[in-house]
Amino acid sequence: MHVQEMLRTHPHVRGNVNDALLRCIEHCFDCAQACVVCADACLGENKIELLKQCIRLNMDCADLCAATGNLASRRTGTNEAVLRMALQLCAEACRACGEECRRHADKHEHCRICAEACRACEAACREAAGTITPRH
Amino acid sequence: MHVQEMLRTHPHVRGNVNDALLRCIEHCFDCAQACVVCADACLGENKIELLKQCIRLNMDCADLCAATGNLASRRTGTNEAVLRMALQLCAEACRACGEECRRHADKHEHCRICAEACRACEAACREAAGTITPRH
Amino acid sequence: MHVQEMLRTHPHVRGNVNDALLRCIEHCFDCAQACVVCADACLGENKIELLKQCIRLNMDCADLCAATGNLASRRTGTNEAVLRMALQLCAEACRACGEECRRHADKHEHCRICAEACRACEAACREAAGTITPRH
Amino acid sequence: MHVQEMLRTHPHVRGNVNDALLRCIEHCFDCAQACVVCADACLGENKIELLKQCIRLNMDCADLCAATGNLASRRTGTNEAVLRMALQLCAEACRACGEECRRHADKHEHCRICAEACRACEAACREAAGTITPRH
Repeated sequence: MHVQEMLRTHPHVRGNVNDALLRCIEHCFDCAQACVVCADACLGENKIELLKQCIRLNMDCADLCAATGNLASRRTGTNEAVLRMALQLCAEACRACGEECRRHADKHEHCRICAEACRACEAACREAAGTITPRH
Repeated sequence: MHVQEMLRTHPHVRGNVNDALLRCIEHCFDCAQACVVCADACLGENKIELLKQCIRLNMDCADLCAATGNLASRRTGTNEAVLRMALQLCAEACRACGEECRRHADKHEHCRICAEACRACEAACREAAGTITPRH
Repeated sequence: MHVQEMLRTHPHVRGNVNDALLRCIEHCFDCAQACVVCADACLGENKIELLKQCIRLNMDCADLCAATGNLASRRTGTNEAVLRMALQLCAEACRACGEECRRHADKHEHCRICAEACRACEAACREAAGTITPRH
Repeated sequence: MHVQEMLRTHPHVRGNVNDALLRCIEHCFDCAQACVVCADACLGENKIELLKQCIRLNMDCADLCAATGNLASRRTGTNEAVLRMALQLCAEACRACGEECRRHADKHEHCRICAEACRACEAACREAAGTITPRH
């Protein structure tokens, strides 16, 4: 993956790298992808009606993780208050999706793995949010 | 535009329409599009270095408005706490982007119109957020 | 909606408006939104197993319509060959999704409306693609 | 990254894994992220006017790579003709963006890395497209 390497050469990041944020960006994109697959894998299972809520939370989580990953990747200028809120929101979406996935983890391997991706992303977002100090 | 009509026939919305939320969804998508165009229009202006921050805020706002519009469009299940936070975050992103656009409004007509789209979306998000009561 | 107005003030569009492309951009975003709602509305229906394919095609169509709408909204520089291919691909995605939605149109009003949005977007994409002449 | 592992447990993929497609999905998301960072890093450089076209191609490439990665991640049902076209389009967008990035590679390290991500994604998309046989 090139994103870490890319960010380290960004003119506004060079020499001032926030490792927690960089890790978080990777988790956001990883979790977005896991959720897209989990939604589709759930659609392919036999008892979909039990997985409705999982599918929907997957889609919400995928949208928010992707948007947050993009936001956190942009380092020109300052939009720190919005970025911190986005990281906190993303953590909440991951928590909700991860909890639902965990309920199906013993039946569906994809739900187990997705729950893992969500938990890791939630932790990374909370840690990264703690490093952002909005300027006033 | 079909989105209002679509949502009114959604099995979980029929007979229980939240007009503030429906209006907000339209504003989110409208503002996302305005921001995509404004970023590109700014790139086409002569003094881009003065518009750097505008372009970046446009891209952040576009990503968050699109994600929020998608979230608010999904009505199966319940993810109300996350939706309310997303609406509040979207309002903040619109505020930041709208303020920056307004600074260039007398020079660039696209910034003036984009500022208008941002302001309308911010208001719609705040109003819609007020109608969402997370269940516990 | 502000997108038309925005594009007419874009420094690279002013005085050289491609009306077919502008209409197409609106249809792309409209269809993307209709598909997001239709996927979720389908998830809320009783016999989801009959709507699996509809949900998946909705999600594919939503992703491609949104990406194509964004591409077509960017007018700085020249990426015409890619834009024309994107419009053609988007038309195909709309055709596939619209056909599937039409199969459920008599049972589900949201599928009927979504089929309509897809058909309109397909036509607009084909018309717009015809106006794009890649430079070599 | 969880996406490979996720896809291998998808009910419609298990025991029938297309390795070229799986690799391609990873490249699509990797390239999308590299392009988002490159656009923003370019905005942070001194002579932005020389990087306008790079920024725009980055944004187009990011949108198409993300959409193609999502499409290719959905394996329920059959939408093979659309998927193959999307892979071919994505390859073209990567080619265009990679070529432009390469022009700035000696000045900007992020452009050099992004060109590499684009080239790898282009190759992966062409290979994956060759493995997709649309059914009629």
